[in-house]
Amino acid sequence: MVARYPDCSMRPVAVIGLGKTPFGAFPDRDLRSLAVEAGSKCLENGQVKASQVEAFYLGNFAGPAFVGQNHLAPYIGQGLGFDGIPATRFEAACASGGTAFFHAWAAVAAGIYDLVLVTGVEKMTSQTTPRVAEILASAGDVAGEMKAGATFPALFAMIARRHMHDFGTRREDLAAVAVKNHANGARNPYAHMRKVITIQQALAGKPVADPLTVYDCSLVSDGAAAVLLAPLERAAEFTSKPVRIAAVAQTSDRFALDQKDDITTFPAVRRAAEQAYKMAGVGPRDIEFAELHDCFTIAEIVALEDLGFAPRGQGGRYTSEGCTLPSGPLPVNASGGLKAKGHPVGATGVGQICDLALQIRGEAGEMQLPRHELGLAENLGGSGASAVVTILRAA
Amino acid sequence: MVARYPDCSMRPVAVIGLGKTPFGAFPDRDLRSLAVEAGSKCLENGQVKASQVEAFYLGNFAGPAFVGQNHLAPYIGQGLGFDGIPATRFEAACASGGTAFFHAWAAVAAGIYDLVLVTGVEKMTSQTTPRVAEILASAGDVAGEMKAGATFPALFAMIARRHMHDFGTRREDLAAVAVKNHANGARNPYAHMRKVITIQQALAGKPVADPLTVYDCSLVSDGAAAVLLAPLERAAEFTSKPVRIAAVAQTSDRFALDQKDDITTFPAVRRAAEQAYKMAGVGPRDIEFAELHDCFTIAEIVALEDLGFAPRGQGGRYTSEGCTLPSGPLPVNASGGLKAKGHPVGATGVGQICDLALQIRGEAGEMQLPRHELGLAENLGGSGASAVVTILRAA
Repeated sequence: MVARYPDCSMRPVAVIGLGKTPFGAFPDRDLRSLAVEAGSKCLENGQVKASQVEAFYLGNFAGPAFVGQNHLAPYIGQGLGFDGIPATRFEAACASGGTAFFHAWAAVAAGIYDLVLVTGVEKMTSQTTPRVAEILASAGDVAGEMKAGATFPALFAMIARRHMHDFGTRREDLAAVAVKNHANGARNPYAHMRKVITIQQALAGKPVADPLTVYDCSLVSDGAAAVLLAPLERAAEFTSKPVRIAAVAQTSDRFALDQKDDITTFPAVRRAAEQAYKMAGVGPRDIEFAELHDCFTIAEIVALEDLGFAPRGQGGRYTSEGCTLPSGPLPVNASGGLKAKGHPVGATGVGQICDLALQIRGEAGEMQLPRHELGLAENLGGSGASAVVTILRAA
Repeated sequence: MVARYPDCSMRPVAVIGLGKTPFGAFPDRDLRSLAVEAGSKCLENGQVKASQVEAFYLGNFAGPAFVGQNHLAPYIGQGLGFDGIPATRFEAACASGGTAFFHAWAAVAAGIYDLVLVTGVEKMTSQTTPRVAEILASAGDVAGEMKAGATFPALFAMIARRHMHDFGTRREDLAAVAVKNHANGARNPYAHMRKVITIQQALAGKPVADPLTVYDCSLVSDGAAAVLLAPLERAAEFTSKPVRIAAVAQTSDRFALDQKDDITTFPAVRRAAEQAYKMAGVGPRDIEFAELHDCFTIAEIVALEDLGFAPRGQGGRYTSEGCTLPSGPLPVNASGGLKAKGHPVGATGVGQICDLALQIRGEAGEMQLPRHELGLAENLGGSGASAVVTILRAA
């Protein structure tokens, strides 16, 4: 994609509105009501009527499996009051939200539409834990790794174990990610889990897949998030606080860990980051804060390295030294991340964009960071087969 | 979308390659191998290497439910030899293939990419018939109509019954669609069912949902189809027979039949047709042949009306008079349609594009029509909540 950039005159695109539901376990809410709540809040936030929206982009991983309803885009679109516009569901596992956002950005940047709504949603908690594990496993290599018993916690445990072996990363480094993200989540009124934990608690957590404990794993959540996009030149019609999409890149990689040369890095993230930095004309040192895909604590550590924030193998140390704390040089997951904010799969990538935009607009409340003008989001699918990296900046 | 057309300089886009598997019941084939076969044939047909492709667009309705594998785009992309490019799955029920095609066209037309592969796939026959019915029903209003027992055959039976009541459409008119499409399918070496039937057989078919019999219902099939897109200005690099995408439009509508004012018409198809005719600068009288979404015989009749080929209420009569035969003024479903060619849901919309392109290139063999320069495809999702209309012409 980036190869074509010099040849096409893409328009700058802005996030002009955002809306979120709390993330959590909501037994009385159905999938559509969550998506409609986030979307409606977003339209209101952007002062846009449903009749003005030209296309609807929905990120959803496994609604058909979780709640039995497929064909979700027009189903939710009708609930939002849309009438006749293209309504499409995008699926790329845990990167479904980021993928919908990428395609929506491309359509506005290319001049196809002016006003588009992107919504991500997942409703997970109505299923039993074993069934949730089975549905999540369908994002991995079902006939290979999964058949052999390797669910995602096991795959990321292998990544953690190898990272420890190759680079000397310690259990304490993983725990430092959990402690930080729990502390951050406690300041987020929309977080699933607002519970501060100590490093001793994290280290003594119930084992899930050695070396990962429950405190290394993200949460199974219900929730939705939405953003409205428009050409930057029209943003002032809708908001006094437009946020510019400086870059967004989507990539893919080999599907299963056993097909990779090195499981301690995600080439899809490296490629997406390379493209995004080039597009935005910035480097990792310019980024002021980030929302990273901490589906497991080790994933945040690997992301720090793949995105160029920490040297190869040093992501754990970088975290333990406090560099990613809200007070550090690169605050990561000030929202609490997937670990504490929650991980309603299809909503996650769009929720990250909302959290970056809230910071840039200075509306992050207790989560507000001192430097908040240039933020990066990384959204990962499966064990690295899909990735989306986005850079937002104050307009 | 069409409102923005005058404002943006979209590039003309061509289909430069196509590839299909046969449609049928293939117990020894898995979903990925079907998609990879169609995609590989397509790359070969377009004389394009996998390394040249810039993005992968996958249409798939319910792979996770039919075969247990989700996150299908990078999974299949790896099988095709793609390395790192954006790989995205598009879902819009039975219009999943058309929807992937629409977004791929938009990306090339807007100058984001030059070379993209669109593939549609579904593997349905590994499930039992009741489970297939349940999975298909998830494209409809599960908590409403479906809970009340209205599966798709029942919904389309209601449409047929109402069409008979309002316009005097006869059982013989429905049967005429089946007889024609079976005769056409018998000439298609890639069709699921190559069996000529008589009108007596069609009328005496085993009842499914009155007035529809087995001969009024499309087939449950496995299969895949793929097309390669490129800017028209580059098409000559790859093929001596480029096919121009004169128009493509995607729309949505209310989700359930009980929310519609009139169940004998699909407003999504009317809107998409209006946009597509405008974009292509043609009207229904200019179209020389069409592939229509005959999931049920009544759907072909309604489509004839919604697309402006027959006057309102006269689609049945138009068919019985022979107008849609290969020898008639508007040949419809020369491929056999969903009725005889088969309906592997996610593949259907892309397969229609292949069948139009084969005709335009003069490569349709025994199916070849006398007039074959301007063709239209209509792909429907659910009971009309999604629609994609495409017009292709000789370049």
